[in-house]
Amino acid sequence: VKRARRVGSPSGIVTLTTDFGSADGYLGAVKGVILARFRKAELVDLAHDLAPGDIRAGSEVLARAAPLFPPRSVHLAVVDPGVGTARRGLALLHGGQLFVGPDNGLFTGVLEQPGAPLVWALENWGLWREEVSPVFHGRDVFGPVAAHLASGGDPREVGPAVEPGSLVRLATPAPVPEGDALRGEVVHVDRFGNLITNLTAPQGLGAATVELAERRLPLSRTYGDGAPGALVAVVGSSGRIEIAANGGSAAAVLGARAGLVVLLRAPRESA
Amino acid sequence: VKRARRVGSPSGIVTLTTDFGSADGYLGAVKGVILARFRKAELVDLAHDLAPGDIRAGSEVLARAAPLFPPRSVHLAVVDPGVGTARRGLALLHGGQLFVGPDNGLFTGVLEQPGAPLVWALENWGLWREEVSPVFHGRDVFGPVAAHLASGGDPREVGPAVEPGSLVRLATPAPVPEGDALRGEVVHVDRFGNLITNLTAPQGLGAATVELAERRLPLSRTYGDGAPGALVAVVGSSGRIEIAANGGSAAAVLGARAGLVVLLRAPRESA
Amino acid sequence: VKRARRVGSPSGIVTLTTDFGSADGYLGAVKGVILARFRKAELVDLAHDLAPGDIRAGSEVLARAAPLFPPRSVHLAVVDPGVGTARRGLALLHGGQLFVGPDNGLFTGVLEQPGAPLVWALENWGLWREEVSPVFHGRDVFGPVAAHLASGGDPREVGPAVEPGSLVRLATPAPVPEGDALRGEVVHVDRFGNLITNLTAPQGLGAATVELAERRLPLSRTYGDGAPGALVAVVGSSGRIEIAANGGSAAAVLGARAGLVVLLRAPRESA
Repeated sequence: VKRARRVGSPSGIVTLTTDFGSADGYLGAVKGVILARFRKAELVDLAHDLAPGDIRAGSEVLARAAPLFPPRSVHLAVVDPGVGTARRGLALLHGGQLFVGPDNGLFTGVLEQPGAPLVWALENWGLWREEVSPVFHGRDVFGPVAAHLASGGDPREVGPAVEPGSLVRLATPAPVPEGDALRGEVVHVDRFGNLITNLTAPQGLGAATVELAERRLPLSRTYGDGAPGALVAVVGSSGRIEIAANGGSAAAVLGARAGLVVLLRAPRESA
Repeated sequence: VKRARRVGSPSGIVTLTTDFGSADGYLGAVKGVILARFRKAELVDLAHDLAPGDIRAGSEVLARAAPLFPPRSVHLAVVDPGVGTARRGLALLHGGQLFVGPDNGLFTGVLEQPGAPLVWALENWGLWREEVSPVFHGRDVFGPVAAHLASGGDPREVGPAVEPGSLVRLATPAPVPEGDALRGEVVHVDRFGNLITNLTAPQGLGAATVELAERRLPLSRTYGDGAPGALVAVVGSSGRIEIAANGGSAAAVLGARAGLVVLLRAPRESA
Repeated sequence: VKRARRVGSPSGIVTLTTDFGSADGYLGAVKGVILARFRKAELVDLAHDLAPGDIRAGSEVLARAAPLFPPRSVHLAVVDPGVGTARRGLALLHGGQLFVGPDNGLFTGVLEQPGAPLVWALENWGLWREEVSPVFHGRDVFGPVAAHLASGGDPREVGPAVEPGSLVRLATPAPVPEGDALRGEVVHVDRFGNLITNLTAPQGLGAATVELAERRLPLSRTYGDGAPGALVAVVGSSGRIEIAANGGSAAAVLGARAGLVVLLRAPRESA
């Protein structure tokens, strides 16, 4: 009864975010374990094929997509280069969503969102598979715990509560003022070759310009606002400024990758 | 009541066909939005990782796979280089299946199939997400509309009916007669390196031959009819002639790609 | 009644293991056929994008992941370079799990697991799609049979029982003794660049060493036990010894691939 008031009914959904590829069978093993423990789980592939060990990409994907799911969905995240070492396993309740995965920074993006997280360390091995491989906690620890939570199990049963402030967080490069501009950088290149920056567009920035690689671009509304192949700067779907090439790849056009400096210059107010 | 007669009970299935990769999280965002609006949706990944902006490939995949699904499945298709521009968003009912996506030619293959399509333009923003990003209609417009339809919502609520003849269609290269042969071309190379042509095999073509790249191949029954590594021409699973290498990649053997000329020569009738 | 006693209630789950890519639409076609025949099937992507025709990889994936699923799940496997030739189609019941696919060695790993398999040859074309393409049995034969089994259909209806000993099996390279060591080899390289060997670690091998490419590695517990970038040998999640690079790719570090010789040397007992 107390539990129900605290965590609410689970949605039954378990999403998976991993750096597993589709061909290796690791993903299939995790899915089998979850379904064997909670037959009614609805498995949703959220993101896979993340670059091996790319915790930052996992953090970004979770922060962007998880809040869109029905309340009390369970988001299992396995980008875990430190598997089997002293790094903790965690369950989190934040923003009405549940998360399970390693304490290595993977939840940095989620924790930047408003709200007061509840966090537990995975220590109750009674919930795990009987034999735990030190190299596959996705199958032997996180999967079973995700099944427990998705089936309505109390998160407080997974282990002791821990202080949210004790969690590992990735250092996020923040934009810095430079003259009348903000100096940011490209933090991610997506499959389309779009360059996602760490610059958030404030309201009313219609006349702002974006500078990178000795080019100056007005802020456009959408990719197709440029000539075919031309570079455009737009406010991306997560609210951050990105640079794209209309019908092409900005990354290819510019030979650009993460780290490239990008300046956001607000319009000069008329005197 | 009228609606039920018109569209029938939905299957609850929502398939996804996109040029998103699995790692970027765009796909996960679309899935979250659909499930948040229709918890009982059964999501099916139909095809992803299409080449960025490859509308033709999307059209082919939809035409081949969608008709095989239970009636009144919803097929959400997002290959949308013109997102946020004046191009329309559409919902279609055709062949007993529902489709949602941009009006850019993505439904060309579906519309070539027999039947009388009903089409609506997506204009009822009351069904969309509250804030619509000009660069992510998959999440903010098409996903919500797909959830509406999959849950049994009336397609006439998505916006005004439009004339099917007004839809954008891709020009499909048609085979042309050349002497006693048909001159076609390779229109798609699949993952196996099979060369899919635009030549449809009529009945009784057992003795026909296929010519390409200065080679002449009899029409075989299946890939394994050739010697290991040898090229074979077969009637592919969609009824069109394709060239394969037994246990290898015809594309690699021939250095071939879309556009390569292929001749289909019927057998000379005996005098 | 007899059936229920023999096979048990199906789980309703149908997993898919294929060498299809995600973009070609073949996978979508198979899914559509299954759902059209058994609407309540729960489709689970087990593994895709296997190297074209890589039967061994398919066998490994199935053996590792399928036993983890709820009893009476149906595992549809399509790595089928001999499609349409004289090779048989099969249904298997083994270890409480059901399997459907071609008789080409794909079930080698499954059949190495303990138990007495029951096997049937797919000959009852009354269960198949009306028209069967000789190049797409996944859609026209295996998919429909998987739907039949997942919905509780009797496996004996798919065709005559066949002798398990008659099935095609892959020759598995076995380790051989070499002096006081075991000589094995790398049999698989996964997405992380981990080198999976055919050497199984017996109990109490803590002090064993692994030799490959003129290097000698102690057996470690997990990847992170080495310095960043350093090679480590660990007991992998399937119980076999693998060589990894902490935070990197062992395959890249060593320029290694399947076939590389690996020696497992047990500790000398103290005199």
